[in-house]
Amino acid sequence: MLSIGVDIGGTKIAAGVVDEGGEIIAATTRSTPATDPELIEAGVADAVAELRAHHDVVGIGVGAAGFVGADRRTVKFAANLAWRQRPLADQLERLADLPVVIENDANAAGWAEYRFGAATEAKHMLMMTVGTGLGGAIVLDGQLIRGGDGFAGEVAHMTAVPDGQWCGCGRKGCLEQYTSGTALVRTAKHRASAGDSLMGPLVQAAGGDREEIDGPLITRLAQEGDPGSRELIAELGSWLGLGVSSISALLDPDMIVVGGGVVAAGDLLLDPARRSYGANLTARAHRSLAPFVAASMGNRAGIVGAADLAR
Amino acid sequence: MLSIGVDIGGTKIAAGVVDEGGEIIAATTRSTPATDPELIEAGVADAVAELRAHHDVVGIGVGAAGFVGADRRTVKFAANLAWRQRPLADQLERLADLPVVIENDANAAGWAEYRFGAATEAKHMLMMTVGTGLGGAIVLDGQLIRGGDGFAGEVAHMTAVPDGQWCGCGRKGCLEQYTSGTALVRTAKHRASAGDSLMGPLVQAAGGDREEIDGPLITRLAQEGDPGSRELIAELGSWLGLGVSSISALLDPDMIVVGGGVVAAGDLLLDPARRSYGANLTARAHRSLAPFVAASMGNRAGIVGAADLAR
Amino acid sequence: MLSIGVDIGGTKIAAGVVDEGGEIIAATTRSTPATDPELIEAGVADAVAELRAHHDVVGIGVGAAGFVGADRRTVKFAANLAWRQRPLADQLERLADLPVVIENDANAAGWAEYRFGAATEAKHMLMMTVGTGLGGAIVLDGQLIRGGDGFAGEVAHMTAVPDGQWCGCGRKGCLEQYTSGTALVRTAKHRASAGDSLMGPLVQAAGGDREEIDGPLITRLAQEGDPGSRELIAELGSWLGLGVSSISALLDPDMIVVGGGVVAAGDLLLDPARRSYGANLTARAHRSLAPFVAASMGNRAGIVGAADLAR
Amino acid sequence: MLSIGVDIGGTKIAAGVVDEGGEIIAATTRSTPATDPELIEAGVADAVAELRAHHDVVGIGVGAAGFVGADRRTVKFAANLAWRQRPLADQLERLADLPVVIENDANAAGWAEYRFGAATEAKHMLMMTVGTGLGGAIVLDGQLIRGGDGFAGEVAHMTAVPDGQWCGCGRKGCLEQYTSGTALVRTAKHRASAGDSLMGPLVQAAGGDREEIDGPLITRLAQEGDPGSRELIAELGSWLGLGVSSISALLDPDMIVVGGGVVAAGDLLLDPARRSYGANLTARAHRSLAPFVAASMGNRAGIVGAADLAR
Repeated sequence: MLSIGVDIGGTKIAAGVVDEGGEIIAATTRSTPATDPELIEAGVADAVAELRAHHDVVGIGVGAAGFVGADRRTVKFAANLAWRQRPLADQLERLADLPVVIENDANAAGWAEYRFGAATEAKHMLMMTVGTGLGGAIVLDGQLIRGGDGFAGEVAHMTAVPDGQWCGCGRKGCLEQYTSGTALVRTAKHRASAGDSLMGPLVQAAGGDREEIDGPLITRLAQEGDPGSRELIAELGSWLGLGVSSISALLDPDMIVVGGGVVAAGDLLLDPARRSYGANLTARAHRSLAPFVAASMGNRAGIVGAADLAR
Repeated sequence: MLSIGVDIGGTKIAAGVVDEGGEIIAATTRSTPATDPELIEAGVADAVAELRAHHDVVGIGVGAAGFVGADRRTVKFAANLAWRQRPLADQLERLADLPVVIENDANAAGWAEYRFGAATEAKHMLMMTVGTGLGGAIVLDGQLIRGGDGFAGEVAHMTAVPDGQWCGCGRKGCLEQYTSGTALVRTAKHRASAGDSLMGPLVQAAGGDREEIDGPLITRLAQEGDPGSRELIAELGSWLGLGVSSISALLDPDMIVVGGGVVAAGDLLLDPARRSYGANLTARAHRSLAPFVAASMGNRAGIVGAADLAR
Repeated sequence: MLSIGVDIGGTKIAAGVVDEGGEIIAATTRSTPATDPELIEAGVADAVAELRAHHDVVGIGVGAAGFVGADRRTVKFAANLAWRQRPLADQLERLADLPVVIENDANAAGWAEYRFGAATEAKHMLMMTVGTGLGGAIVLDGQLIRGGDGFAGEVAHMTAVPDGQWCGCGRKGCLEQYTSGTALVRTAKHRASAGDSLMGPLVQAAGGDREEIDGPLITRLAQEGDPGSRELIAELGSWLGLGVSSISALLDPDMIVVGGGVVAAGDLLLDPARRSYGANLTARAHRSLAPFVAASMGNRAGIVGAADLAR
Repeated sequence: MLSIGVDIGGTKIAAGVVDEGGEIIAATTRSTPATDPELIEAGVADAVAELRAHHDVVGIGVGAAGFVGADRRTVKFAANLAWRQRPLADQLERLADLPVVIENDANAAGWAEYRFGAATEAKHMLMMTVGTGLGGAIVLDGQLIRGGDGFAGEVAHMTAVPDGQWCGCGRKGCLEQYTSGTALVRTAKHRASAGDSLMGPLVQAAGGDREEIDGPLITRLAQEGDPGSRELIAELGSWLGLGVSSISALLDPDMIVVGGGVVAAGDLLLDPARRSYGANLTARAHRSLAPFVAASMGNRAGIVGAADLAR
């Protein structure tokens, strides 16, 4: 039984036919016309049509960055795309004549990791996706947690520091402001601007212009042994572990999957996260510590998870 | 179909026969010999035997303060009772010859509110129990969330303030240090010791000795209009709302039930909690705000919830 | 005995002849060519020449925004003007043939308040200037405190919140990020963006565009009774009072002068500051509380203070 | 010209004849009858009489733990001794018939370091005394800073963490709660109670009872290379450096003297303090970093400083 998964990102629509083992057996892409909802939907329908020409599918799952309603049919709000209260499932069902399920993209990716990726051994999984921003997904006992409005899993906007860094969401001290690629780069730039000599190699590697520092550069220098870059990634890891320790007090997951671009730093990120989690987890003398593992499905997770949720 | 619920507290064992509507149709108590596990178990068995003499029951549910294993059979650790890795369900099944289920007491109470009390209309409930300490229970889509080790729902030990107040659990800044009856009283005493004139009426009502200030006194003066006492309860409410806003980012519950002794202050507590929750909830322009309601089952919740979980 | 005071701001050079009573008996201005140090100096010399044509003066005092060396002769660094290690006193003495003293502008203004303004009754004064940014000046027993490098009085960059808001200085949690006109406006915009209904009147008064909210608008609405604007100013006042309580633990001043544009809000700012200071001052049962008073010399303070320091 | 210095501690009165070079040329002690002011004063007078039998002195300086009035004649409040608004100078002048000056003990010790000890090269000195608690002294350009009520130098009660650890002074988050021997030991005990394996060697060295951990034990194990003890002292050092960076923004001292029992850890404490100070000092690219040096006068500082202030 095949289904189609679609991952709508800010610049690209990626779609694939996915089998019951989580393998993508055919794939295609379209560019994302971010400002026009109807064009996005037409692009999705077009990609779906191409894939259906050669494959018999039972449904379509769509992962999208944004707040998706609890009924999995409506995008309530998307920061980077032109959707506001958009009945996306209705639109696509009309265009494609197949059942459609919508899901938040981080949730879709988390579901893929739980079903086919790094967390197949887990019963209760927490996924933290540390990319430009911070995403999250929670699967407890085989159920993807969605909440009353479908907004669950927004780990980014738990309060990490009262009266801390302002967040784009209008609140202060959100975890995302301490645990994301954006936070990583911002810290590097601020420390460089303040004349912190540990940032010297990074500035030099950025051609002498601290504004050119980016996440991949920090990761590369960290892997090459640069102490300043390692300190930056370790600090991010410590915040990640602290955040996970709070979530674990609440949900007690038995596996932590870490995804997103920053996980390219590997144990330079994960070891400080594990230490901080272990040091901050309540009652740790009486419980198991959950393993921190890197996500294993990469970019495919969005397509595979969405497709699987459509079955 | 009747079952028996047992609530093992620090000083008293309370047991009752509960029907399918959540009503207690017979009840009894024993005192709790806290230092001897076998005596506690004998007390439970004795209370159960008394109740079974007149009622036909299908099982026993036991709520206990402490960490209960995910299989609901073993108390891993209890701060105030002499249990360490105690196979409580096995012991009681041997004594009573009936199936036994063990549950954390806050979870049992939360389950009772979800099934029969303040949250019967809720789909996804968060319960916060603000008593001497802070307890929590989470029910999502009819499932009581227990986690990998059975330790879920420990809202008390989420980090509210990095490097904040030391907690008895060995960590810094736990939410319980800001949102509990103990925190309320400690704040009053510290402010009084520092010569804060707003604490004057409280000290006077405590017979001039600030060490005699306790939670019920603060609640009573607040209800009588004392500005200092109202400020203390409002501050606690603000922390409660801030904590709930973080949990809501993660789980998006559609109802918040507030229980415990401090809820006697009513809207003096709940209104500041609602305000703080509303002000700190991410994406609030795009979602519903969950109502904050007072728990409705009082002390019965532990017995009723435990009994219902045993069916 | 007359002297000349010069206040070099980002857009204007203001100069005046000042008598021993702190009165400005003649004044003139030039525009500030911010990017060319020599043009600024020529402008100062030109203004001085105009004033000396009619008045006999003994020296020149110059107040400038920036870090001024402990010897009062060199501007080490100025964020908004093109000075780096500039021997400003030497330059001006050459041009004007009179002794020249350089001083940080906040220090000059503080000195004027101490000698002739709101703090003539004080022995130990702390001045907090809450404008776009946050400035400070300390006078203890008649001595303006300058420090080893001349950098004393930088109240803006004391740490108010560990891991708090990033500051332009490259550090996290500086007091200026919580106690300045910039912080005031940023908070309003963030709360408005998050859909906080209390910010509604402000957005409306800004023509419906929250990006048009500014400090004077918030002050005006606060004075007209708008609860949201009052809350914003009161919150700023609370941070101000908290900062002053820490400084008072260290220096125990007997008067607090509050200057800068935000003080236009009067007691709407000062009362919350007083409350927060009183609540947070250590050992307050055993000491006097210092009065918080508004600065009284307005824009003249820079000229008058600089001139007086030149005598 | 000789003078007598007296250091009144919680258990012992130490007195000495001090010459103009800061040398103690004769000394004696009495025990401190803490609960009876008149007995303390009689003890001081007796010690003074003994010393005067063989030395001609011009005055008496007394250092006492507590809040001493700005006129240096009255002890306003002392936590550990039975003085409340006690006119100590009057009493002693009557008993000894010599001019008497009273000073806070941390101030007296700081003055001794400035005049004869580690800071003779300094112009503007900050002294931080990290003992059981945290003390401070400030000398700017040869003036000991005392403030309007004589309460200056209370570095302990600057706010380090908003809503942080409660302090005995009735406030939250005082620097002393993070930078003192008491904080050091409390952290070790809490971490041990939470099952932190890094605390294992400390618990073992304390005979298996974590309640027996004390400061000297932590210092000794740190010096022997124990990673957990080193981490504890380094963390204290980081808080110390952060506190000093805030004070330096305000006062810009050119030397930091660190005294008190914890300084026995030497560079294990001072290096992390230097790093944290350097990383957190504003505008550090444009200024000198002040050296951190260990106090050099030990227990003698109180006697020597008090005696010198009496001249």
